[in-house]
Amino acid sequence: MTVIYADNNATTAIDPQVTEAMLPYLQDQYFNPSSMYEVARPVANAIEKARESVAHVLGGIEANQILFTSGATESNNAAIFGTAKANRSRNHIITTAVEHPAVLEVCREMERDGYEVTFLSVDRSGRLNMQEFVQALQPDTLMVTIMHGNNETGVIFPVDELARITKETDPAIIFHTDATQSVGKIPLDLTGAFRYVDMLSLSGHKLHGPKGVGALYVKRGTQWRPFIIGGHQENGRRGGTYNVASIVGLGSACDLAREHRDDEKRIAALRDRLEAGILDRVPQVEVNGQDAPRLPNTLNVACHYVEGEGILYQLSALGICASSGSACTSGSLDPSHVLKTMELPFTAIHGSIRFSLSRYTTDAEVDAIIDAFPKVIANLRKMSPYWDTKTNQPR
Amino acid sequence: MTVIYADNNATTAIDPQVTEAMLPYLQDQYFNPSSMYEVARPVANAIEKARESVAHVLGGIEANQILFTSGATESNNAAIFGTAKANRSRNHIITTAVEHPAVLEVCREMERDGYEVTFLSVDRSGRLNMQEFVQALQPDTLMVTIMHGNNETGVIFPVDELARITKETDPAIIFHTDATQSVGKIPLDLTGAFRYVDMLSLSGHKLHGPKGVGALYVKRGTQWRPFIIGGHQENGRRGGTYNVASIVGLGSACDLAREHRDDEKRIAALRDRLEAGILDRVPQVEVNGQDAPRLPNTLNVACHYVEGEGILYQLSALGICASSGSACTSGSLDPSHVLKTMELPFTAIHGSIRFSLSRYTTDAEVDAIIDAFPKVIANLRKMSPYWDTKTNQPR
Repeated sequence: MTVIYADNNATTAIDPQVTEAMLPYLQDQYFNPSSMYEVARPVANAIEKARESVAHVLGGIEANQILFTSGATESNNAAIFGTAKANRSRNHIITTAVEHPAVLEVCREMERDGYEVTFLSVDRSGRLNMQEFVQALQPDTLMVTIMHGNNETGVIFPVDELARITKETDPAIIFHTDATQSVGKIPLDLTGAFRYVDMLSLSGHKLHGPKGVGALYVKRGTQWRPFIIGGHQENGRRGGTYNVASIVGLGSACDLAREHRDDEKRIAALRDRLEAGILDRVPQVEVNGQDAPRLPNTLNVACHYVEGEGILYQLSALGICASSGSACTSGSLDPSHVLKTMELPFTAIHGSIRFSLSRYTTDAEVDAIIDAFPKVIANLRKMSPYWDTKTNQPR
Repeated sequence: MTVIYADNNATTAIDPQVTEAMLPYLQDQYFNPSSMYEVARPVANAIEKARESVAHVLGGIEANQILFTSGATESNNAAIFGTAKANRSRNHIITTAVEHPAVLEVCREMERDGYEVTFLSVDRSGRLNMQEFVQALQPDTLMVTIMHGNNETGVIFPVDELARITKETDPAIIFHTDATQSVGKIPLDLTGAFRYVDMLSLSGHKLHGPKGVGALYVKRGTQWRPFIIGGHQENGRRGGTYNVASIVGLGSACDLAREHRDDEKRIAALRDRLEAGILDRVPQVEVNGQDAPRLPNTLNVACHYVEGEGILYQLSALGICASSGSACTSGSLDPSHVLKTMELPFTAIHGSIRFSLSRYTTDAEVDAIIDAFPKVIANLRKMSPYWDTKTNQPR
């Protein structure tokens, strides 16, 4: 069975060029880059080259502001816990109710530790209320941590604007963004519009790189303390032997993301065609985040009167990989916290499906989904007590 | 130039079988194991198989007590910070002054956070004083964290005994060991002699596996809170997308370590021959940790009246990779904290060199080191103001 992979916000296929770049470091180039002997030097150089590649994809910042981590989850933990540790005199954190669990659960932990956390809500389309945000900024606000692109809906928050407002209100407030879903998908220039951002998290495996590696940008001068400690690596900012092969893979993935920047338009066109095809063929369906700016690769559709799990199983049987929420919350039967915050009606929240495309997605694959999806929904609605198959409308 | 790699306590050559086991997960098997569709299931299964392999190398414990991390440094951070978080009523930690920085620096951070930390000293051979250890156990002792094999000297602490005494004194004290250097090198059975150990850290790249992956054993029932949070992975005990390829590599490395268990004797014989050859040919040299039980692969020799860096550079020029201390502290000009604690004389502490062998080390390589090393030391002593080349003795 051919697999149609439309779950690129969960993880991406690793680019063969990335694997090839990694291989020497999983073979002969196994030396510890911290070692002093000659043969370890090329390994150390490869890490610094990768650091330049990450810096480049973020707009060409100075590379020594990038540190490598085990992934965006560690980066987010490090950003929030490390900021709190370095700035004991402030007690308030601003985030949103629709963050990835790696930010949300850390913020909840901060609450348990006595911090006051404002979880900003969003409207029916997933947008923040800018006035609410401005009002949330307090004299004792320690940091703002707001994601760039939402992993479930693809809704893009105006992080450039939010960071500017934050720093203009109080330069001592630290602004962090989880850009895991946006890096490599949409432009993000830390020397341009995003220059007010102090810290940024990203992950390798969301941009056709390896799993288990990510980066944290910490702008020079930011009050922050390391999270994983012990060892001189990363100039004392993150202990642990360098994960050489994966770091090289992340660098290569960032280089390829820049090369493929123009694919954004093609991917957006595919997504738009998928969206139109589904809206056209399936009754009682709506696009989550429809009035908001969205990542070009993401389509989250709410199908009323059906269950997401049932859709996923039927799609899986047809070789189509999609998702009903974050892979990081799978195993839980709770409906998506993102869609709950958007106040989707009960009939739709359980029937929301995310398709997320990539530069590998083809026209034929989109055609196949447009063909299969309406049948899957019709099948499931036949079994639904809320659906009248004669009128093809809810009872 | 042929490279003679004798720095296996810094990192090891990855076994080609490990790389081969990893490759599918860096190619077609890229799916997120947390995803619900059919094609992701083999990926999830591969992780559980690797977990069994890690459990097996530790004596065949139940695998769900193993969680995967980004390496031993994260494991150590998680063990100590996570234990403190879960047990707020106790305030005292026991460790040693010769731990790896990943434990030592975390313990110093705990001190800054208001904990009382006992740093046990060692004798001239690197051994703990058991009576001192027993006396250090207090009613408010939260945890003991003591390494198994020392990375610099190879000295083995009686962790089985230390854990037994701890738990017999007060079962509420949590016993953690950093076994990064011993797993795969010497027997370590968590169902046998080491059954009193509550938590254990290990790393992939010290046993011919990949860098950037490790594990933390948390015995069922241990009061402990997760360190990297956000996501349902590892049953909620460690957030972040599974680092599939590296986890599979770690599992494969553990399987191979069990297969190669008998190599221990051959490696010990090589190390003993290297040791005898050096002691025989170089005057004013002593073995650090000489009266203590040591890891079979490790030889740390103190050469009086020479500088470690000079030795390393000359060895490097001959293609021989060795080390003057921990790779994790390189870049620092301070002498080794381990050798300082052992109270080596000033003339020897800077001239200490570690050779660490592996199952890949050959007889011919040991011969080459035995041949080269005395010449390097003689060369350097010619330049030393403290050395009389006529008598071949210190002035």
